[in-house]
Amino acid sequence: MPRIFTYSDFADKNALVKTYADKHTPVVLCNDTAVRNELFSVKVRIGTDAKHPNISVHHFEYIQLWNLETLVGEVRLEQNNYTKEPIQIEVDFYLKPTLSMRLMALAYCNKHGLWRSEERFVKIKD
Amino acid sequence: MPRIFTYSDFADKNALVKTYADKHTPVVLCNDTAVRNELFSVKVRIGTDAKHPNISVHHFEYIQLWNLETLVGEVRLEQNNYTKEPIQIEVDFYLKPTLSMRLMALAYCNKHGLWRSEERFVKIKD
Amino acid sequence: MPRIFTYSDFADKNALVKTYADKHTPVVLCNDTAVRNELFSVKVRIGTDAKHPNISVHHFEYIQLWNLETLVGEVRLEQNNYTKEPIQIEVDFYLKPTLSMRLMALAYCNKHGLWRSEERFVKIKD
Amino acid sequence: MPRIFTYSDFADKNALVKTYADKHTPVVLCNDTAVRNELFSVKVRIGTDAKHPNISVHHFEYIQLWNLETLVGEVRLEQNNYTKEPIQIEVDFYLKPTLSMRLMALAYCNKHGLWRSEERFVKIKD
Repeated sequence: MPRIFTYSDFADKNALVKTYADKHTPVVLCNDTAVRNELFSVKVRIGTDAKHPNISVHHFEYIQLWNLETLVGEVRLEQNNYTKEPIQIEVDFYLKPTLSMRLMALAYCNKHGLWRSEERFVKIKD
Repeated sequence: MPRIFTYSDFADKNALVKTYADKHTPVVLCNDTAVRNELFSVKVRIGTDAKHPNISVHHFEYIQLWNLETLVGEVRLEQNNYTKEPIQIEVDFYLKPTLSMRLMALAYCNKHGLWRSEERFVKIKD
Repeated sequence: MPRIFTYSDFADKNALVKTYADKHTPVVLCNDTAVRNELFSVKVRIGTDAKHPNISVHHFEYIQLWNLETLVGEVRLEQNNYTKEPIQIEVDFYLKPTLSMRLMALAYCNKHGLWRSEERFVKIKD
Repeated sequence: MPRIFTYSDFADKNALVKTYADKHTPVVLCNDTAVRNELFSVKVRIGTDAKHPNISVHHFEYIQLWNLETLVGEVRLEQNNYTKEPIQIEVDFYLKPTLSMRLMALAYCNKHGLWRSEERFVKIKD
């Protein structure tokens, strides 16, 4: 199966390798709490510090957001709608939670494969 | 080919039909001008006033944003991540324009087919 | 909206233009009749005679099959899983028809936009 | 992250559980050898013996084929193009291999999550 990479797999490596890992690893950005049945937005950004190339042979093709085993949504990216400069890709997801969530993003780079974020716990408040 | 519907096809109909058309027609929301090579965000909302059902046999499956003949991106929606109440779906797209744009959204409802927004012109400022 | 091109738009042009149109136009290949509720397969091929480039800046990204206003399915293509030689892309769709169908394929080239096949009528036999 | 299930996780369970696992697990069907740079077809079938439900709240939404870390392609399924009877879904992928491959399929069920096939090795012959 495809190996699914993440930043922490490379956290004990040298600076060059850590930058490589950072520029591929999605980060889930959202509030820690959500209100049941109300719209909740989640931003996913690729990389905390580093920008990723955006050329046709090396770019991100899609980003998925998961809540445990359930797919929340997927964004398909088209490389040629950004400039060819390196970029920190950001996408948004919206949902209406009914229970507390464990969110995780998966992002696919057409050169370096599938990368996952840390899991992010979101607690439901009534 | 699939007929592509839009609100104005139904604008001379009765209120019930106009609400049907409104709840399916995507609206492109963004600034009228963009700065060349800088990140530009576009929101697409389904409906100006009416909410659309969100049940498994009747919901929106995807929304695409186009700039003339070029696909900007696509968002895949998962019905079960919203409640089953009717909803005004919103999604976001990001791009870095190099030329003025003619943006249009397409949205697919699994019961009533493919719907398009009005075209929206965005002028590039240097 | 994106203009949707097809071979017949260019049928009165010179040979060069006709080859351009042929190498982008999907063709729906299937039987003329189907048995109700039994599995029915449909092949979609891009081009009747001409091969299309398959390089990262010029390739087909997806092919959809439609039955009138209803999406039958979609195949996402990854350019780097073919060689870089020009190719006649083929994909398959499966469905179980309950009524006669009017099938049409849409194919998206990341350089030359969205192309449609002729409509193909499939009659149901009980 | 989403747990990725497979038949062998359940192989020591009772017959009911094994049938549950079988009806969700994709199987990669192809030749053991491929000719370099020539078209090679791969069929993915969900289940070896058992059929899976095909109703709107319980069906397969997509199937991906991977070659190690590289995505080969993806098929999007539309539930309402099959009857509502349980079914063994089949899809086809085409590629032109340049090196030996380790193929694996991933399939997403909107009720029971993400499932993977066994890895299948395909040797290149020149």
